[in-house]
Order: sequence, then C-alpha cells, then structure tokens
Amino acid sequence: MTSIRRDAVVAADGPVVALRFEHGALWAIDQTALPWRETELELRRAADVASAIERLSIRGAPLIGVAAAYGVALELAHDPEGLERATAILRGARPTAVNLAHAVDRVGAAVRRAAPGEAATAALAEAHALHADEAAASAELARHGADYLGSGAARRVLTHCNTGALAAPGRGTALAVIAELAQRSQLELVIAAETRPLLQGARLTVYELRRLGIEHELVVDGAAAGLIAAGEVDAVVVGCDRVAANGDVANKVGTYSHALAAVAAGIPFVVAGPTSTIDPGCPSGTAIAIEQRAADEVSRVRSGAAGETYELTLPGTRCRNPAFDVTPASLVTALVSEHGVVEPAAGDSVLSLLG
Amino acid sequence: MTSIRRDAVVAADGPVVALRFEHGALWAIDQTALPWRETELELRRAADVASAIERLSIRGAPLIGVAAAYGVALELAHDPEGLERATAILRGARPTAVNLAHAVDRVGAAVRRAAPGEAATAALAEAHALHADEAAASAELARHGADYLGSGAARRVLTHCNTGALAAPGRGTALAVIAELAQRSQLELVIAAETRPLLQGARLTVYELRRLGIEHELVVDGAAAGLIAAGEVDAVVVGCDRVAANGDVANKVGTYSHALAAVAAGIPFVVAGPTSTIDPGCPSGTAIAIEQRAADEVSRVRSGAAGETYELTLPGTRCRNPAFDVTPASLVTALVSEHGVVEPAAGDSVLSLLG
Repeated sequence: MTSIRRDAVVAADGPVVALRFEHGALWAIDQTALPWRETELELRRAADVASAIERLSIRGAPLIGVAAAYGVALELAHDPEGLERATAILRGARPTAVNLAHAVDRVGAAVRRAAPGEAATAALAEAHALHADEAAASAELARHGADYLGSGAARRVLTHCNTGALAAPGRGTALAVIAELAQRSQLELVIAAETRPLLQGARLTVYELRRLGIEHELVVDGAAAGLIAAGEVDAVVVGCDRVAANGDVANKVGTYSHALAAVAAGIPFVVAGPTSTIDPGCPSGTAIAIEQRAADEVSRVRSGAAGETYELTLPGTRCRNPAFDVTPASLVTALVSEHGVVEPAAGDSVLSLLG
Repeated sequence: MTSIRRDAVVAADGPVVALRFEHGALWAIDQTALPWRETELELRRAADVASAIERLSIRGAPLIGVAAAYGVALELAHDPEGLERATAILRGARPTAVNLAHAVDRVGAAVRRAAPGEAATAALAEAHALHADEAAASAELARHGADYLGSGAARRVLTHCNTGALAAPGRGTALAVIAELAQRSQLELVIAAETRPLLQGARLTVYELRRLGIEHELVVDGAAAGLIAAGEVDAVVVGCDRVAANGDVANKVGTYSHALAAVAAGIPFVVAGPTSTIDPGCPSGTAIAIEQRAADEVSRVRSGAAGETYELTLPGTRCRNPAFDVTPASLVTALVSEHGVVEPAAGDSVLSLLG
C-alpha cells in the first residue's frame, strides 16, 4: 500500500470524494489523517483494502461495502483464482457492518456468473455498479429523509459520528439528509457530537459541514442528552452500521444514549441508511456481534498533521472499547432508506423496505 | 499565586490530600496537571482561590466549598474589612455548585458573630470546622451508600467524573461509597467514564483508583449506555453539584444519559453528595443555572506532563460547552448523604435529609 500526500483541502468547498477507482487502483482518502491533512492511499490488493478498513482509513458502513467490492476486483486482477482468499480477507476486516459482507457476496456472485477468463472484469463491473447504486441510494435517501423531517420543525438537528460523503458514496446517509434540509432552507443548525474515541464528529463531520457551508456547533458526546432535554434540539439524525430484522439498530458507540434522550424529550430519533444495511438474517440487536477495538483508542488521542497520539490517562490503564452500541427498535422514530421511510417505534417492519 | 512542583506521586499508595492549610496559606493540588504531575498551588488571597476554582485546579462541589471558606479566611487575614470583596470574588467563581455559596455564607456569618478584631481568626476557625464537617460527612455517606448498595448485588459499578478525595474532603462522595464497597469486598470492578471535555474520569478517577488498588476499566462516555444495556453494569453511582428541592440533580455533563440508561435497564442510579449540595431555595432543575465554559475545552485536549493542549477539530470551530446537565428526580433511585438515603424516584423528599 502506497500513500500519496496531496495538498490539504481544508479550505476547499463542496463535497469530498472519499473513494475513486483509477489506473487500476482504488484511491481512498486516509480518513485517520483528516481534518489536518489530505492523503490518498493507493490500494492494489484485497489485503491493502482490508487493512485500510481495519485501521479506519476507510470507514462508514456503505463506503466499507463499496471499498470491499473493489478489493475483490483488485485481487482478481492480480490472481483470477483469488476469490475465496479475497472474500475471507475482506469479510474479517470489520464484523459489525453488514454492508461489507453483502458487497463481497454480490461481487462473488457476479464472478461466478462470469464467462471463463472474465472474472476480474466482471468483478470490477460489479464493484462499479455497487458504487453507482449506493450513490443513487444516497440521493434518494436524502430526499425521503428531508421530506420526512422537513414536514415537521426539524431546524436544529443533532448528529453523531460521520455519515457524509466520507461514510457513504454520494452525499452520505444522515448527513445527506441534513445537507438536503439545508439546501431546502429548512435547517438552522447542526449540532455535531464529537464521537469519542476516534472523534469522527470533531474531525470528519465538522470538516464536511465546513466544506458544505452548513452552520454547525461541536459538543462532547455527554452534552447531547442535556441539550436535548433542555429543548435545544429538534431532531436527532444518525446513520447505522447494521439494522436487524426487528428494527434494532447497531451504530457507532454513543448513539443509544442520544436515542434515549430524544425519546424522553419527545423529539424524533431518525436513522438513515441504505437498505444494504438491513440484515434480514439477523433477528434482533442481541444477535449483532459488537466489534471490540484496541484500548489505546480510548487511552490516547490523535491530533494534528503529524498524526501523533497523546496520552489521556495513566499508562497501563485497562480500557474497554466497544465500537458500536444497539438502539432498540422501540426508540427508532423513523428509518429512512432509498426506498422510503418506515416507523419502527410505531410498529412498522423494516423488512418492508426490502420490498 | 505561587505553584510549587513536588515529586510525582503516581506510584504512591493511599488517599490523596487535595487541600491543606499550613503556614498561613491554602495548599491545593493542581488537578489540571494530574495524573502526569503533582504540583501544589500556594494560595494566599481570595482571588488566588477563586482563580484556582475557575480554572478547575480545585474542583468537586464539596472541595470547592471548603476552598472558598479558606479563601474568605485568607482575605480577612490580609484585610480584616475584606469580607464583602472576598464573598463577591469567590461566589462568582462557579455558579452551579451550591456548596460554594453555602460555605462563603457560613464563614461570613461566623465573622459577623466574632468579637471586634477577631474576624480573621473566626473565619479560619469556621473554615477548619467546615473542612472537618465535610470529611466526617464523607465517611458517613460512604457507610450509608455501601449499606444501600451492598445489600443488593452492586459488584460492577459505573461512575462518572471524579468524586473521590480530589472532589470532596475525606474520601469523597460517590468514590467514597465505591471505596467502602471495595473495603467490604462487595466490589468487583469500577467502570470509569472518561468524562469529556476535561477527562476527570480518565485523569483523576483512574489516578485515585490506582492509588487505592481498586480494579477498574476506563470507557468513553458514549460507551456507558450500551454497556449498561448489555448487562455489564450493576449500578451507576455518581456525585452531584446541586440538588434541587424536588430532587432534580445537577451534575457533570454526561450524567443524565447514564441515568436514562440505568433506568431503562432496571439498575439503580445512585447519587451521592453531602447535604450541603441540597439547595432548598431551588425548586427544580429548570431553576439551576448551568455554567457554560470555554469552547477550547471541547476543541482541544490536554495531555502529558508539559500541560500542552492539542487540537481535536478544525481551528475556528464553534463549540458549545455546558459544564453540567440535570437529571430529573424521577430517574434518581437513591440520594445518599451523610444523614442517610432517600429514594427520590419512589417519591421521597430530599428535603427530609436536611431534617
């Protein structure tokens, strides 16, 4: 894996392009270096892609799926017999995001349908198709979400983690809804929760909102519930990493407490995600494997262009670091997808979105 | 204000002494430098004490109260007519902690009762008496809290912020209850929430638990609710900065979401604080002024012995930084004080503790 440093684009306007396939390689913005430095990683093998996903250079459930699809194609271009190996390497990169498994399976099926000698070509075509499908889903999802929220009084929206163009092809998921509200002049303010431990809110959401020219404020995660209770927030809108068949939602750690606070305050808790994040094979949240990540994500923090990390506690402190939590369907006011909106808390089935 | 650097005591055992009055000065551990460095501040005027409180070198509602009492005494030793000025300076240091106002008023009353020429002596005697009272309250509170929790199965306790000897004279409040449970062999594990923005959990609670030899793990604030929902926590025990007459509790930002999660999971949410934190003049949480602190506490983080801070987001990002949030009485399973335990969620009046 090669990394190529480009000029910083912090001052640039407009949406970010998180992934592009060019000259036989997948080029991915190294999200661990944002907002201080824009570096593109040049990925040429499935293991490169898996490693970029593991270390969160590529993140966001839908973006991980597309990257993994390209990962299969890259491996087959190198070794036409490499499907099994590529699948295994990529599936193991992150256990919670179901899109990854979906994407790898979709490309695998295309490869098996392909004529002899056409495996790599078929895989790449399928990866491109998935990429295009996800970008189209983002646009549709944004429209449905803005219709749903805009009909109310969602002028101050709180969000968690990063769910923009850095997380999903197109404009993203929850942040795409927010951007659409802003475009319709139905948005006053975005309150971004910083999203410890890796600060995707402080680093990535703030970066995207700055580029999009959308008014925003940053808060620590623990401040969200109090602001919601105090009437400072009109709606919470977040993404999702996996939605179980019963409507339970796994998303970035810290999401569940925002949902509790929203429901206690009587404001909508809205989850935005393409239908590829729905896992009909997973009956409920208790069946979702929650990825446990390294302790030093909690005990240290990364800052600045040098990418250095700094200690936040005594050396040797034991840390527990679940990457996700589960919000029960009963707290999910709405699930917004490219196929429309359902209301799990009101008893709607999320499976109806799969048609 | 002079600061004197002492040897680091990170490896030392036993409780910390956060404040001591000696040689005509108040000596306070500079809590902003922990756990990397133990520095004592030498405070000789009310303004020194107020400044140390404002910058959180001295923190924790009961400790702030005692420090402010000494602040009045220090000012009167310098200027026997200085009561009004000292009172004004100290009362303005932090608006949410009611102990500060209580303490200043208590010393003021003693001064007004004093014989002519005895103002400074009377003030210092009253400050010492308050200090002793709070230390005694800590011991009683710990006993009541451990009786209450130990009768159940509170073996894994989650706590927020710092509530040990660094926050209150004696062994502290919530952390005193936890230490008492440990001494009774009724504790398995403390889960400490890091407590952004200033990381009192990661810096101070971990430091105290290490010194006390109590098993602990550190988590980000957003992980608490998910761990509670997953059955990993048997009770939440926190301190308080102000308790309203109706039982609503103001405490460090991030507390409210732990309470929501605890109640949703059916585990006790226990608040520990001396009766000096109860404000009978404050009818409910909505009447509590929530201190708003500087944006750079959110946008930057402090690390290491050099006391340097590091950027977590794009420069110029607007941040909102409420220092506290309010947990409604309906979520407070128990309020533990030196006079015993009441159950606000079950309808008990917290004012009965003032008896």
